[in-house]
Amino acid sequence: MASQPETDLETVMHALGRAARQAQRVLATTPRERKDHALRTAAAELRARRHHIIAVNSEDLADAQQRGLSKAMLDRLMLDEKRIEAIARGLEEIAELPDPVGSELARWQRPNGLDIARVRVPLGVIGIIFESRPNVTADAGALCLKAGNAAILRGGSESFRSSTAILSALHAGLDAAGLPRAAIQMVPTTDRAAVGHLLRMSEFVDVIVPRGGKSLIERVYAESRIPVLAHLEGNCHTYLHESADLDMAVAVTLNAKLRRTGICGATETLLCDRAAARRLLPPVLDALIRRGCEIRGCPETCALEPRAKPASEEDWYTEYLDAILAVKVVAGLDEAIEHIERYGSHHTDAIIAEDREAAETFLARVDSAIVMHNASTQFADGGEFGMGAEIGIATGRLHARGPVGVEQLTTFKYVVRGSGQCRPG
Amino acid sequence: MASQPETDLETVMHALGRAARQAQRVLATTPRERKDHALRTAAAELRARRHHIIAVNSEDLADAQQRGLSKAMLDRLMLDEKRIEAIARGLEEIAELPDPVGSELARWQRPNGLDIARVRVPLGVIGIIFESRPNVTADAGALCLKAGNAAILRGGSESFRSSTAILSALHAGLDAAGLPRAAIQMVPTTDRAAVGHLLRMSEFVDVIVPRGGKSLIERVYAESRIPVLAHLEGNCHTYLHESADLDMAVAVTLNAKLRRTGICGATETLLCDRAAARRLLPPVLDALIRRGCEIRGCPETCALEPRAKPASEEDWYTEYLDAILAVKVVAGLDEAIEHIERYGSHHTDAIIAEDREAAETFLARVDSAIVMHNASTQFADGGEFGMGAEIGIATGRLHARGPVGVEQLTTFKYVVRGSGQCRPG
Repeated sequence: MASQPETDLETVMHALGRAARQAQRVLATTPRERKDHALRTAAAELRARRHHIIAVNSEDLADAQQRGLSKAMLDRLMLDEKRIEAIARGLEEIAELPDPVGSELARWQRPNGLDIARVRVPLGVIGIIFESRPNVTADAGALCLKAGNAAILRGGSESFRSSTAILSALHAGLDAAGLPRAAIQMVPTTDRAAVGHLLRMSEFVDVIVPRGGKSLIERVYAESRIPVLAHLEGNCHTYLHESADLDMAVAVTLNAKLRRTGICGATETLLCDRAAARRLLPPVLDALIRRGCEIRGCPETCALEPRAKPASEEDWYTEYLDAILAVKVVAGLDEAIEHIERYGSHHTDAIIAEDREAAETFLARVDSAIVMHNASTQFADGGEFGMGAEIGIATGRLHARGPVGVEQLTTFKYVVRGSGQCRPG
Repeated sequence: MASQPETDLETVMHALGRAARQAQRVLATTPRERKDHALRTAAAELRARRHHIIAVNSEDLADAQQRGLSKAMLDRLMLDEKRIEAIARGLEEIAELPDPVGSELARWQRPNGLDIARVRVPLGVIGIIFESRPNVTADAGALCLKAGNAAILRGGSESFRSSTAILSALHAGLDAAGLPRAAIQMVPTTDRAAVGHLLRMSEFVDVIVPRGGKSLIERVYAESRIPVLAHLEGNCHTYLHESADLDMAVAVTLNAKLRRTGICGATETLLCDRAAARRLLPPVLDALIRRGCEIRGCPETCALEPRAKPASEEDWYTEYLDAILAVKVVAGLDEAIEHIERYGSHHTDAIIAEDREAAETFLARVDSAIVMHNASTQFADGGEFGMGAEIGIATGRLHARGPVGVEQLTTFKYVVRGSGQCRPG
């Protein structure tokens, strides 16, 4: 089975893993000053090297253009002075965050005098698989470092040169702080088989964080032998309860759908109570259509808004990431919750309602990472939550749910302090 | 590929999964009174049915004897009035615990007025795979129910009748509280292939908790497509620092090794600083040997204690679960920590030391779920930690680490309350 290059690749990947484990043990007890010093130095190095980074990025861009990458992909790949400055500032902001490591989550005394503390510790080694955005190298590497984790990064082949240049700046920061370069490593090959190895080396990697499109996430979920923190889709809903205020319904729906259509917190389906459909839907849909949004509606929606196209069953499942909205009239709260359970992706779902009891029922019963009352689903973001930078949003149920920031990249251990206690019995 | 019976089994397992998902949605918003009522009624039913349970248990025992099960296995399988009373009391104790569901882990306001709460919610559907102890049916089922989860139980074939009888009592409790019986289900077949299905049906099961010997846990880790909360081994260490008090070293080591040798928190390897080996080891080892413990020592240990047998490399890796102790002299703190990292299982490790600085270094640097100073490793237990009943101890890094009690069987979601906020930009 194992052809020679395959074996070599496995050797390379395992060496990365072993180095990451060793580095992680150093990072676990590194005081915050040194981690922050590494981050701030890396920011300065990024600024100092910006001309070089832009130069190698233009090589990546030229190759990508030749290979016929889409305009959207090329835009994600592109780095200029403004974007490099934003990356550098991002590193400084992560340095400003409190250090989660070592904080006591709880501490109590037992009747026998044992003192028990639950203390935050780093998660370990984090494997990050991403596509074309080279800034993920810095953002994800820095978040992992701040939380005391070692990172193994695997970027898209189209951004290989740009990511490598950014990684050099991070390494200069680690050098300056006397920290091992293996704290942030990049898979040194664009061979796609490397991803397969990364997803299977559970002895070296504690968690996988994929960042990218649905096909990448699907592959990671299917192949990974290591727990994954991710969301496959953000098929988010905004539900207009019959008690909704009209002005709020218009403003919040417009924002939830159209502020940015390409983010995972964008609303993809609008639900509206039948009892208020005549009052709410025509003005809400008119405002959307006037701003260029396509409406795909259920028969009742189409009857109220002739410019709507009929929705198919497939539409209720679809994350458009575009100026398209599926719209359905429902009998009430129960049907709305059932619809979200059946078609949704457990990411972010909102109710617009003046009736607080209905809102609390919705918040309690909708089983999503984020549930909202009278707010735009576009707030689904770690920064907007005040949690600082995030590595992504997780919709799985274990460990981290919702925005995955520095705190969510930690675990804990129990520290028990005694004075010679023995267990009776 | 799919032979007829295989397809049938898959159909059966998926039906269990679907029913569990539905039940879980009901349980997620069930108030504690009803869950506790179910648990207390189940306890009463267990007591009322004890003669029947003992009768079917004796059928299980007779079969197991015929199949030549070990005495230890037969003892685990056996139920008598005392054990049934203990199971019933266990259910009542779980009913007494606070309900973790709905509690706010954190709540804060954003400058834009958004109110954000991190709220505990049930984990979902939990698959529990266990061996001969029929009491796990009640203990695990009750812990899952208390935390608002649905449970799918898969017990050993040798305890099938006993577990079924216990499950009936739990169902009587669920009936009395008007809760769906699918809240606690048992795989209705002893076919081993059912475990394989359970470990793959990630659409219906959120987490797997295996309870049993190393071969069971290994199989679950190898086959599961669903996250696993478990520990493979408890290869726990007690380390005598050169500053250790002699009396404490003797008392704590005896307790850590011999109080009960078959539990996962029992110490399996004793490490001792070279600088204090002459002072500490002879009295500690003499006390152990006089109580019937076999010593397998490094050459220095064997030189100090002639009754010790020489340890092999394999001994440092071994979880004896018996009155055997591996003993190694180390150069100091660093070597002790390295040894634990290399050979240990990240379960529970302790230092005995009067030097507080050395102790704090050990507590910070040893990467185990539980680290202890001046206490017996046999305290590694959710009940001893004051966390109530536990479903087991986890050594993985994600989600739950250490004792897995009611709180650890939950996750959280973000509840965002606004007044019409839209995200700028």
